[in-house]
Amino acid sequence: MGELDIRPAEADDVPAIVAMLADDPLGAQRESPDDLTPYLAALERLAADPNQHLMVAVRADRVIGTLQLTIIPGLSRRGATRSIVEAVRVHADERGSGLGTQLIEWAVDESRRQGCGLVQLTSDASRTDAHRFYERLGFEASHVGFKLSL
Amino acid sequence: MGELDIRPAEADDVPAIVAMLADDPLGAQRESPDDLTPYLAALERLAADPNQHLMVAVRADRVIGTLQLTIIPGLSRRGATRSIVEAVRVHADERGSGLGTQLIEWAVDESRRQGCGLVQLTSDASRTDAHRFYERLGFEASHVGFKLSL
Repeated sequence: MGELDIRPAEADDVPAIVAMLADDPLGAQRESPDDLTPYLAALERLAADPNQHLMVAVRADRVIGTLQLTIIPGLSRRGATRSIVEAVRVHADERGSGLGTQLIEWAVDESRRQGCGLVQLTSDASRTDAHRFYERLGFEASHVGFKLSL
Repeated sequence: MGELDIRPAEADDVPAIVAMLADDPLGAQRESPDDLTPYLAALERLAADPNQHLMVAVRADRVIGTLQLTIIPGLSRRGATRSIVEAVRVHADERGSGLGTQLIEWAVDESRRQGCGLVQLTSDASRTDAHRFYERLGFEASHVGFKLSL
């Protein structure tokens, strides 16, 4: 299998990340893998923000997973810092390999290292497999997630 | 009634913000209004991060509401920036006055001004009044919100 490396994403990783975002029942409708310009601009914004961690999982020089971890300070819960996990994707060839677990465990460990008191994420109501996955990892489905498109 | 001002929070506002966080069925168990030290430290972290906007609503020199808006760049949805609203609170004396709506409208307008494609928030599953409130404002309860305490 080779060693798994979870490291910050670079510009060269963007095509593989966007391909994973698009290879998904929800993502297929909202991504444009043929035009990487907006993604590369977003990577520059992410790289300039020390509280953003866009990561890739790499094995044998191949990008096989990604997630974004955001560190959010705040006043509530006695000034607790929290983290938010977004855009978790595992390459279709790697599903069922435990890579999703390794990615989330990385995010939880990094959140703890950065002094967070809470890790949170939202998952589309239609992704019932993902919900079971997060509950197995100890997450509690305690909230309703609301979105407003602008 | 006097003019409503929604402006960035300052250290002098922290006692009033923490009192609102604590005056809540969920917050009462997890806040410590008698010791402001952790809250003041968190305010310094927030002030140092240009993507964090901890706001207070003030009328006649009195802090009557608060929310935190976080701007999050990202690759998904064609490099869309999103915003997250956290810690929305309205003083008990002001509930039903439309102030909650004004706070959320401020957050939506500011998100639009900063080029966000999406505003998101999570609300505890027990806060059914809040859910109706967000749906009235156009938010869709499309996601499940997961949390893991560290």
